[in-house]
This record gives sequence, structure tokens and C-alpha cells, in this order.
Amino acid sequence: MAYFERHVFFCLNERAAPDACCANHRSAELQAYAKDRVKKLGISGRGKVRVNKSGCLDRCDDGPCLVVYPEAVWYTFVDEGDIDEIVESHLVGGQVVERLRLP
Amino acid sequence: MAYFERHVFFCLNERAAPDACCANHRSAELQAYAKDRVKKLGISGRGKVRVNKSGCLDRCDDGPCLVVYPEAVWYTFVDEGDIDEIVESHLVGGQVVERLRLP
Repeated sequence: MAYFERHVFFCLNERAAPDACCANHRSAELQAYAKDRVKKLGISGRGKVRVNKSGCLDRCDDGPCLVVYPEAVWYTFVDEGDIDEIVESHLVGGQVVERLRLP
Repeated sequence: MAYFERHVFFCLNERAAPDACCANHRSAELQAYAKDRVKKLGISGRGKVRVNKSGCLDRCDDGPCLVVYPEAVWYTFVDEGDIDEIVESHLVGGQVVERLRLP
């Protein structure tokens, strides 16, 4: 059994303008929001879900982005509503949110 | 096909003494070393290997630690020799290094 059932990494990398970077798209704020949502839903911790900060995930032009392992599903997102959908559909229900999925 | 064949996350988290933290065990320096080794071996990038910095992986007492996805294999390490073994055996050859594996 995996240490975490699902492990989520948000890119929080900052780059100097005019380069694209996830930090310019509220990634830090939305990572904290996702972590809090997961905790409040009681699905955080060992054997369950971990929402992590990460350095550059090397998809700057696709960002803001996050990745969910072990499925290796990548998402982009705009706001809290998108995060809610990823948390409730994917992290709770195991259903990938195709609308927000990165190719 | 996954965006990265193998995605490695090193915990670089710092905590104030006397709390255990990965940053006290050269994790930042060894993450940079691993990234450089992977690059020099020509196995870095899309469809291959990515070596990432990460925030706290929540295994402070087991640290320093890293995790390799999508396999969800966790390792501890002490020095460059351990990193070489993880890179050459697991990241290049697909063979888990049981000696360094965390339970």
C-alpha cells in the first residue's frame, strides 16, 4: 500500500517577468486552499491524500499546473471553483476532471 | 504515456531545531546533485526523468527523504554515493534500491 493514496504537487515556482510562471496565477494561494479543503473533508494524511508544494514542474507554459500521483494526471486551474472540482471529483471520488486536464 | 516516466521529489523542508527536518541532512545539495547526474546521463526531460524540489513530504522523522512516482517508492539517503545508486539502479535501470528504501 502506498504511503499516500494520492499525492498532489502544486508548482509554486516564480520566474521573473516576462517569463510565464505558476506563481503569477495564485498557485500558492490555491495550494493552501486545496490543502485546507482536503483536511476539512477528512481525507488528509497517511494512506489518504497529501497536498504538497513543489518547485518548478517544468510545464511553465501550461501553468498554473499541478500533478496527481500515482495516476500522473496533470491539471491546470483558475480559481477556487476549479480546485473544489478537482478535490471532490478526483481526490475524493477517483474521477478525473477532463475539463481541467492537461494533455 | 506519462509526461515524465519517473518524477522524483526531494523534501527540502526546513524546521526550527530541535525538530527533525530534511534540510538539516543536505537535502538541497543532494537534490541539485541528483538533478545534475540525471542531466549528465541524458535521461532528463519530457518522457524521461524529472528531479524536483518539494515542500515538506510529511515524513520528517524518516528523513531525509525523497519519493519516486509513479511507483511511489520512498528512499532515504546520506550522501552522493546513495544518490548515485538510486539514479543508476532505479532511475536508469528500473531496479528499486532495497537498501535505501523507506517502509
